[in-house]
Amino acid sequence: MAKLYHFPLSPFCRKVRLCLAEKRIECELVEERYWEQDTDFLRRNPGAKVPVLRLDGKTMAESGAIIEYLEEVYPDPPLLPRTPDERYEARRLAAWFDDKFHHEVTSKLLYERVNKKVMGLGYPDSKNVKAGAQKIKYHLDYMAWLLDQRRWLAGDTMSIADFAAAAHLSALDYISDVDWNRHAVVKDWYAKIKSRPAFRSILADQIPGFPQPAHYSDLDF
Amino acid sequence: MAKLYHFPLSPFCRKVRLCLAEKRIECELVEERYWEQDTDFLRRNPGAKVPVLRLDGKTMAESGAIIEYLEEVYPDPPLLPRTPDERYEARRLAAWFDDKFHHEVTSKLLYERVNKKVMGLGYPDSKNVKAGAQKIKYHLDYMAWLLDQRRWLAGDTMSIADFAAAAHLSALDYISDVDWNRHAVVKDWYAKIKSRPAFRSILADQIPGFPQPAHYSDLDF
Repeated sequence: MAKLYHFPLSPFCRKVRLCLAEKRIECELVEERYWEQDTDFLRRNPGAKVPVLRLDGKTMAESGAIIEYLEEVYPDPPLLPRTPDERYEARRLAAWFDDKFHHEVTSKLLYERVNKKVMGLGYPDSKNVKAGAQKIKYHLDYMAWLLDQRRWLAGDTMSIADFAAAAHLSALDYISDVDWNRHAVVKDWYAKIKSRPAFRSILADQIPGFPQPAHYSDLDF
Repeated sequence: MAKLYHFPLSPFCRKVRLCLAEKRIECELVEERYWEQDTDFLRRNPGAKVPVLRLDGKTMAESGAIIEYLEEVYPDPPLLPRTPDERYEARRLAAWFDDKFHHEVTSKLLYERVNKKVMGLGYPDSKNVKAGAQKIKYHLDYMAWLLDQRRWLAGDTMSIADFAAAAHLSALDYISDVDWNRHAVVKDWYAKIKSRPAFRSILADQIPGFPQPAHYSDLDF
């Protein structure tokens, strides 16, 4: 069986977990305290990051490269649209969330509030938390603008753009940092993706020291 | 004709310039002071980053998504290998340079020494410069280890992994921050890629306030 070395709230791991589940690739989850740089783990990935996926006798790292591989080798169901224009848009938005949103929001809220405590790096920097709380509004507005014109973020089909966005937002939702009342269209989009069977394992995550809030796994949040 | 909004020393722009040139897509270069967040530019890319490419009547951002688009619509010559395993490896290494190398080296050396001055953000932070100078050794060692077993970084064919690596290293070479004598095999690889016609425009770059060092454009460096 496939094996994914992961950290439960990592948005990059969540994105890969969602793609594996949508493609019905069964996978054992192994929690990895990657920041401790254990030698065995470094041998699997000299990049010292999660996710690391064992699949088809290979050990793979880098979530974007993993997902392109899954899409090529396990094309059913497709998680990239059909035309090059639509595929470009899905990849652009996945990169938007994994790069810009990650830098401006996830690293400022989730990493300050949770990762620092888990890794023993001290208290959240309130300047960062404030900046992240401010920036997430702008990103939710951008999502609403996209979803006013489209069924899913990158167009009329669900794609890696939706999984990248949902991976970041679900991790932030675990610490109640998403204002779902800001845009009905964004809340509807999240309700739709949250109710997919592929989301179940993510809604079951528990982080010691950070109890799951009630709305987090509620499909009627 | 295509138009690329870029900043000369940006490794992400250089990677796209190399791919466009290898595919013989003629392209006008427009220098963009993206950090000034000009309204016209923000309309082209709300992400406020370069590169931004005008091609086929579309405006595109995010270098990784642009390159996958070019590969799908202009497949000749291919810049990704043929099998899914090899394609995974090329994408993994491109992400290695654009993420890990960028974070540990490019942002610590190039951004401290050049971007800060150009953007009027003050003097380099010597702690960062020292950390970057230390880390680049480890990355050059990793490249040497790969190139001891392969003709190109990701395997036996030239790929986006080589362009991503050459984009970062060429920008650092402009400020003489690469020790080419550390590994003969890495120097040979760079000499090979540097002598390609696609590299000419990059070797002609000039940054006001930062004169090009003699070895930079020398094919026999």
